Amino acid sequence: MTIKAVVFDAYGTLYDIQSVASVTEEAFPSYGEIITQIWRIKQLEYTWLRSLMRRHQDFSVITEESLAYTLRVLGLKAEPGAFARIMEKYLHLDLYPDALATLAALRGCKLAILSNGSTAMLSALVKNSGLDRVLNATISVDSKKIFKPAPDAYTLIEEVLGVPPTEVLFVSSNPWDSCGAKSFGLNVAWIERVTPEAMALACVKSDVVPPLTMFKAIRTQMDELGLKPDYRIHALSELPGLVAAHEP
Amino acid sequence: MTIKAVVFDAYGTLYDIQSVASVTEEAFPSYGEIITQIWRIKQLEYTWLRSLMRRHQDFSVITEESLAYTLRVLGLKAEPGAFARIMEKYLHLDLYPDALATLAALRGCKLAILSNGSTAMLSALVKNSGLDRVLNATISVDSKKIFKPAPDAYTLIEEVLGVPPTEVLFVSSNPWDSCGAKSFGLNVAWIERVTPEAMALACVKSDVVPPLTMFKAIRTQMDELGLKPDYRIHALSELPGLVAAHEP
Repeated sequence: MTIKAVVFDAYGTLYDIQSVASVTEEAFPSYGEIITQIWRIKQLEYTWLRSLMRRHQDFSVITEESLAYTLRVLGLKAEPGAFARIMEKYLHLDLYPDALATLAALRGCKLAILSNGSTAMLSALVKNSGLDRVLNATISVDSKKIFKPAPDAYTLIEEVLGVPPTEVLFVSSNPWDSCGAKSFGLNVAWIERVTPEAMALACVKSDVVPPLTMFKAIRTQMDELGLKPDYRIHALSELPGLVAAHEP
Repeated sequence: MTIKAVVFDAYGTLYDIQSVASVTEEAFPSYGEIITQIWRIKQLEYTWLRSLMRRHQDFSVITEESLAYTLRVLGLKAEPGAFARIMEKYLHLDLYPDALATLAALRGCKLAILSNGSTAMLSALVKNSGLDRVLNATISVDSKKIFKPAPDAYTLIEEVLGVPPTEVLFVSSNPWDSCGAKSFGLNVAWIERVTPEAMALACVKSDVVPPLTMFKAIRTQMDELGLKPDYRIHALSELPGLVAAHEP
């Protein structure tokens, strides 16, 4: 089956959410990285918990609430303006260095983002990074009132692009998102950005396990959910070759 | 409204899941505690992710899969038998020291457990700890094929005990579970076993944030989900007084 559309997750896949660390470090010296790690864990947890409780809330609210939680747990108080400056960075995240060239090389396919982000957050992010010029669609789960990995979220791809799941390649660095997409029936390429070897080495070298290594590990290693992505790659730049090889 | 039933979460509320650390430490010296922390995070994530993906699996399978993930991420290999010994401990968890006395003092109410645990795991655990003699019911979410905090899980309380939500006090140390129960409409007592002050102090005293402190923090501090438990207590032993005071 030919791949007719390549659909990307946004946060952590095309956009480096760790790039928030520059702003959090400025606001809270020496806490910058740990803030981004806890923030991300809680941001994800809240999307899943709210979906299960049937108390959907806009992703921007969830992002604010998980940041508030993070600062509280760390015993940090944001000075006026700092909270807003950190949140603002979410609209100006750095693209991974190979993102633009990869998208350009894939121009033969329909290209889109499918993200838990709200329509407003995604529009700003895509515009600020210049991706609005190369993407055919930026799809937020907003209209479904439920977050990935619920099947309803992935149905939006066919609804918006008109391409059936078997002809879509879904790309995510998030293990849970890769599993959700696979469970739904999409072709899936999972980007493994931190290898298990690098993780194990970091553990051996340090006083058992450094906290940042650990937080990164539990977000970047493939989960045990009884599902396996079709492809395991290490960078966006591998995608054009992969799509070409997938042709019948 | 009089409280006619007190219903407890099991893992982390009546039973100390950190007591697994003795067995994990024996199997993997110096990794005992970190294993239990990562294991727990992933065990919870998998219950939520599988519920959202509509791929329900028995809690014992999820517990095994999250342990397998934890060992893999840490670069650890279990010798034959070690994996089974660790899993076995889940059927012999320690009760919190004040659990038995608290349940005895609450004997005027119907008493039950509502847990994500499978029927087989819970039956063994309750029998091994002697709670089968004081509980009116041990309720697993099994029959609903979805995990807490989905509303369907909490409906089991009225179905099994015949007591409506307004006359039930639900007790959990898990912030997300306390929020789920509150969202459903139960009266909720949240047990905060680690105070924010202790957490913040641990951060200040150490090289920013020690990993175990951090993992504990993100499991024990109240979440930002727009919900507030009715009561915030610090130990099970506060419950008899609380139930008495709740009387009209």
